[in-house]
Amino acid sequence: MTQLRYLTAGESHGKALVGILEGVPAGLGITAEELHVELRRRKLGHGRGARQKMEDDACEILSGVRHGRTLGSPIALLIPNRDWRNWSEIMQSEPFEGDARRKLEVPRPGHADYVGGQKYRHTDMRNVLERASARETAIRVALAAVARKLLRELGIQIGSRVIRIGEVIDTAATGDLNKLNERADATAVRCVDAQAAGAMVQAIEAAKKAGDTLGGVFEVYAWGLPLGLGSHVHWDRRIEGLIAQAFMSLNAIKGVEIGLGFGAAGTPGSRAHDELFPGVEAGTVAAKTNRSGGIDGGITTGQPLVIRAAMKPIATLMSALHSVRLSTGEPADAHVERSDVCAVPAAAVIGESLLALVLAQAVLDKFGGDSMEELLPRFEEWSRAAPAVTSTPDR
Amino acid sequence: MTQLRYLTAGESHGKALVGILEGVPAGLGITAEELHVELRRRKLGHGRGARQKMEDDACEILSGVRHGRTLGSPIALLIPNRDWRNWSEIMQSEPFEGDARRKLEVPRPGHADYVGGQKYRHTDMRNVLERASARETAIRVALAAVARKLLRELGIQIGSRVIRIGEVIDTAATGDLNKLNERADATAVRCVDAQAAGAMVQAIEAAKKAGDTLGGVFEVYAWGLPLGLGSHVHWDRRIEGLIAQAFMSLNAIKGVEIGLGFGAAGTPGSRAHDELFPGVEAGTVAAKTNRSGGIDGGITTGQPLVIRAAMKPIATLMSALHSVRLSTGEPADAHVERSDVCAVPAAAVIGESLLALVLAQAVLDKFGGDSMEELLPRFEEWSRAAPAVTSTPDR
Amino acid sequence: MTQLRYLTAGESHGKALVGILEGVPAGLGITAEELHVELRRRKLGHGRGARQKMEDDACEILSGVRHGRTLGSPIALLIPNRDWRNWSEIMQSEPFEGDARRKLEVPRPGHADYVGGQKYRHTDMRNVLERASARETAIRVALAAVARKLLRELGIQIGSRVIRIGEVIDTAATGDLNKLNERADATAVRCVDAQAAGAMVQAIEAAKKAGDTLGGVFEVYAWGLPLGLGSHVHWDRRIEGLIAQAFMSLNAIKGVEIGLGFGAAGTPGSRAHDELFPGVEAGTVAAKTNRSGGIDGGITTGQPLVIRAAMKPIATLMSALHSVRLSTGEPADAHVERSDVCAVPAAAVIGESLLALVLAQAVLDKFGGDSMEELLPRFEEWSRAAPAVTSTPDR
Amino acid sequence: MTQLRYLTAGESHGKALVGILEGVPAGLGITAEELHVELRRRKLGHGRGARQKMEDDACEILSGVRHGRTLGSPIALLIPNRDWRNWSEIMQSEPFEGDARRKLEVPRPGHADYVGGQKYRHTDMRNVLERASARETAIRVALAAVARKLLRELGIQIGSRVIRIGEVIDTAATGDLNKLNERADATAVRCVDAQAAGAMVQAIEAAKKAGDTLGGVFEVYAWGLPLGLGSHVHWDRRIEGLIAQAFMSLNAIKGVEIGLGFGAAGTPGSRAHDELFPGVEAGTVAAKTNRSGGIDGGITTGQPLVIRAAMKPIATLMSALHSVRLSTGEPADAHVERSDVCAVPAAAVIGESLLALVLAQAVLDKFGGDSMEELLPRFEEWSRAAPAVTSTPDR
Repeated sequence: MTQLRYLTAGESHGKALVGILEGVPAGLGITAEELHVELRRRKLGHGRGARQKMEDDACEILSGVRHGRTLGSPIALLIPNRDWRNWSEIMQSEPFEGDARRKLEVPRPGHADYVGGQKYRHTDMRNVLERASARETAIRVALAAVARKLLRELGIQIGSRVIRIGEVIDTAATGDLNKLNERADATAVRCVDAQAAGAMVQAIEAAKKAGDTLGGVFEVYAWGLPLGLGSHVHWDRRIEGLIAQAFMSLNAIKGVEIGLGFGAAGTPGSRAHDELFPGVEAGTVAAKTNRSGGIDGGITTGQPLVIRAAMKPIATLMSALHSVRLSTGEPADAHVERSDVCAVPAAAVIGESLLALVLAQAVLDKFGGDSMEELLPRFEEWSRAAPAVTSTPDR
Repeated sequence: MTQLRYLTAGESHGKALVGILEGVPAGLGITAEELHVELRRRKLGHGRGARQKMEDDACEILSGVRHGRTLGSPIALLIPNRDWRNWSEIMQSEPFEGDARRKLEVPRPGHADYVGGQKYRHTDMRNVLERASARETAIRVALAAVARKLLRELGIQIGSRVIRIGEVIDTAATGDLNKLNERADATAVRCVDAQAAGAMVQAIEAAKKAGDTLGGVFEVYAWGLPLGLGSHVHWDRRIEGLIAQAFMSLNAIKGVEIGLGFGAAGTPGSRAHDELFPGVEAGTVAAKTNRSGGIDGGITTGQPLVIRAAMKPIATLMSALHSVRLSTGEPADAHVERSDVCAVPAAAVIGESLLALVLAQAVLDKFGGDSMEELLPRFEEWSRAAPAVTSTPDR
Repeated sequence: MTQLRYLTAGESHGKALVGILEGVPAGLGITAEELHVELRRRKLGHGRGARQKMEDDACEILSGVRHGRTLGSPIALLIPNRDWRNWSEIMQSEPFEGDARRKLEVPRPGHADYVGGQKYRHTDMRNVLERASARETAIRVALAAVARKLLRELGIQIGSRVIRIGEVIDTAATGDLNKLNERADATAVRCVDAQAAGAMVQAIEAAKKAGDTLGGVFEVYAWGLPLGLGSHVHWDRRIEGLIAQAFMSLNAIKGVEIGLGFGAAGTPGSRAHDELFPGVEAGTVAAKTNRSGGIDGGITTGQPLVIRAAMKPIATLMSALHSVRLSTGEPADAHVERSDVCAVPAAAVIGESLLALVLAQAVLDKFGGDSMEELLPRFEEWSRAAPAVTSTPDR
Repeated sequence: MTQLRYLTAGESHGKALVGILEGVPAGLGITAEELHVELRRRKLGHGRGARQKMEDDACEILSGVRHGRTLGSPIALLIPNRDWRNWSEIMQSEPFEGDARRKLEVPRPGHADYVGGQKYRHTDMRNVLERASARETAIRVALAAVARKLLRELGIQIGSRVIRIGEVIDTAATGDLNKLNERADATAVRCVDAQAAGAMVQAIEAAKKAGDTLGGVFEVYAWGLPLGLGSHVHWDRRIEGLIAQAFMSLNAIKGVEIGLGFGAAGTPGSRAHDELFPGVEAGTVAAKTNRSGGIDGGITTGQPLVIRAAMKPIATLMSALHSVRLSTGEPADAHVERSDVCAVPAAAVIGESLLALVLAQAVLDKFGGDSMEELLPRFEEWSRAAPAVTSTPDR
């Protein structure tokens, strides 16, 4: 239903990751460096394995942008695999006569290996894991960097922080949202509280020593939003549903919540909603709280969006999990591979990207517009006509 | 992308709710009574207001079914508003010259009232709330009853239970899934543990006395599933994402989780995944746990699906929340209306319905088929070729 | 991809036809009478059978409209079957124990009977023909009346004429488009030339006498269009493709062309395109011709859209066609039923409706907007910024 | 709604054309050479300009295929621009400080130039024409080669022929469809009749001398089809509509017809349909004619699909058309560029590709299936259960 759509392609150790983003208005300024900024942020975080360090993702703009501005035509991005020469035989598209090395016959629990192999009738589960890998998110982050740029032109910002890794929980307040990413990016685990960050690093080190892995929770924010994205009129227009799909579809995510989230279940109605007050400006409305996380009835209120997602620990462990060798049906240890211990900080950045794509879609669906020249005044006019719910009920 | 699609229409106090379900295979046996069974279950639960009692929803099949079997053509369902004569003037589609009674100018916090009115430029927020009301779910439950019937023919069952209302949490084990609905439907709040159910009823009564409302958490299960619904190959094919969208789009839902859910964030990798073992039958694989909630890598494993959703308390309170009279910009009490105190038991049944629709879509996407005659043998053949992960690793 | 979507349901002799149109902006004035105007026009035309006379379609607005204005919520329309009491047993949705009367076991050539029966595994082809019947277009015409009203508010008009029935071809010029429908509706076959109209009526009478049927060609126009609907950037955004799908999907349509159409194949390049000239107003561009039919490169130019569609003769003939009794495999005469001799005039009106739906979708995709209050100024602003190609190159 | 979707990207003189095809079953054998076969066929035809000769499109498979077999994951294809070094500055994505060479300020009539420039607010119409160019079809032909391979595995073949160029019309019978492409590819203009082919070449030469261009008509066939693709149950499932959209969306196409097409308008009902007869095999049905072009009621009958499309002459002429310099508003000659004189033979091959994509989508929608291992037996079982209408009514 949306005006902005995209597809991604590419295997983890294949030639390249590719993405096409169709429906971006013309006239948006964008450069490869702006994509690289986000790609680098995706690699942040203590606990990432060797591969993250090796790769310095270079993203090439193949189409849709000319002389620094979008054309309105589809934007194709390409991230070549820097290590391709080591994989060219294993992953080549042409028929291969020799022995397939790195064949995977013992599925790793917690991955798509077993079910994907069964579904697509593969006996070599490499045929599954290469695509199921979170490596794919690199190209989504790149595509989303275009969406973020579009949103930024409208004054919409997106940030994130890690609030839990394993059993360490950061309960610090968020502070000035405009500095959120700056502060989060500055710590080793994208947790804004230095003390909690330290404890998280220790937890990761401990898990590493134990051959174990850790999950956690991250929080994604968007602010500068207009009132009116999404709708109550049909369930599949509700913006919280689109957000939930995007987040839950991210590798390893097992839970998503908005605003009070699961906490709302235990809060009485008298304290679970955002009471409304006259705003400072005539004709505006304000709230002292943001329990809704910026969405009421499927529609953005204009207050900050607040989304939390729970990530399970990485499923590739140094201490092998029990599994089965499918060719024989006998018990076997799951494949052990050097892998990350904790990917929550990276997931937070990816979460920002997912949100950027959903919000850019919602913006284009509401405002239409084939060019920034057309979109910008419409957006401004709307923001005047239907001002966002503010957080300053001081009139 | 899906072969099964639907639209619903209708205002809460309008003439009727209408739904069209397009893409159901021909030859599925279905009767109006089968729809009524689910519509009645939707009304269960201590804490529902007077309206639920008044309505005994009668659902009419207008098309797509002939002589008890689906035709393959779109199925249209209609639930007339039994109270229409009292609303015919207020809600009539034709121009109305008199004073619009029941005009709503003070938005209720926590509802779509304010944002919906702004978005659609309505000054009478009745124009929003009539559609934003959860009354709409009645027609979705009716449409979903067709999806459930289709799934049942394939051996797929769906059930639910309430596990939290306000601060009362039920930690009882689920027991035999085949009896889940029977047990849940039997208690006043669809909570399978009698003691917890009693405490929940008390909590509702206490909230009622206090003019307050309560939210909670419900759990939805599906079992008898094949391995292989959903996919890892593109993010928007992941079944957990489609499920999360469906649940988060339900009125008042603020959180969704699958399997361990948010609990996975604090569980180390060594205990967060489902280790695999040889199954009892040769060529099968089994797991002793179902931490994944039946989904790995975006694909059903064949183990039971386990989904939990958090519902915020109903936003219409007897003790009015603060709001603003929009015509004057002055503070005002939000509209107070006799309403439910707690709708979690009903939401659980609706959750079953949402899941039924998602699963029926996934089944038809994977198996195609224009008739049950075509679908059934394909489904059986698949279940033989790619057996579900079982829970009995005893070989 | 579009913001405006719809589903229809209903069997020809079922209880009712139903349609849901989702995505109409709020604040559009609409009444049931405006739907009836188009429904009556759909019945125009010499050569229609008894059924068209019997039915005086009454269309009920079930939702989405209140006090004469759209709410922004889905619009559900219902056209009850006035003859339902005669069909209630034959078409009832509940199981039926008696003999199924009016069972159809000999497929009618040229209809969906045989292939539809095979596809959906029906032995009684009534289960196919009831939905395959062009009766369904009544509800589409009703839904489209809402789209037409929206377009009219923007100054976009739609009209049609019949230009061929059997071997009689009307080559008269179109004249003032604003009077096109008035003139066409005034003649017995919606052909604007009185002489040709007379010959067409004679041809229909002759075919009737011969137990035969006739097809023909109709032309649909839209004018008052903005420049800029549709796009060249991706094939499925091209508006001519969307139009072609809509028209070719109409029952009995076997060909669609735009502008010069098939005539373009034999015209040299020097005379096949619309040369551009300075327009009367500074900054505008004009053309002396409209060979393109109002679309270049997938985008409306603002000149009138000109679409022609070829309709095959009605496939139910009084002189039975050869067929096969499927239960025995023996040759048999196809079912003979009193039917129309020629439905081209009606098809032209339906064609207008199909175009209205496509154009309303394209408008909403380009301009967004949840209310007419939001849409109208955007549309006007655009028409100023990017003026349509005019037909008056006189500067 | 379909299980098989794709996006393309790339400007005519940009770095590369890119396409992603998502939803192809696993286990389909495919090599780059199979793509090249179709890419070479796309260049066939007397009357193509220098550029066609220069380019020898090399298409790279970037993902979705491993060791000669599809993985089930998205297939990304890339066709680099061999002439990129000559365009790298003019088309670079990064900001460019110098003078933009090859700026286009005089729109070419009959192209997207003017309307596209207005729509996307470009003053340099190169920003439009680079994407509007039919060069984009190269990547669609490559993607479609995968679809063709899938169809071929099921026994479905696709071919085409040119039947008109300018005023020269080939009325020869089609002959054995299995040899259609062989014969068409062998002549200079893909016209199967040698004499007509000769006249067409002469017409092209004459047009070239006159600085003019020519359009024409081509015919596309598919055979070996099952009965049952597409459906009558909802208008947007009708396969003729999907085909019409695909064809009409191709650059320069102004008309599409199926079977008798526009000829049906003048044929009486007694001779416009395909009468049915008992087939040779018990339980089958046959027809002596194929006036329907292989589709009745939106559903394939299993007889050959017959589609014709009318192409307007190429709009870039050596004798410049009148236009306007937009910066000044003064009359000016349209840009003159060495271009093809006639592209109908190439369009026919592209038409085959468009049909392949539509049919592959229809097959996957009906049969589902994540692997060829799953799809093939389903397809065979269906062909047995619901045999195609044959052309041999000899029993």
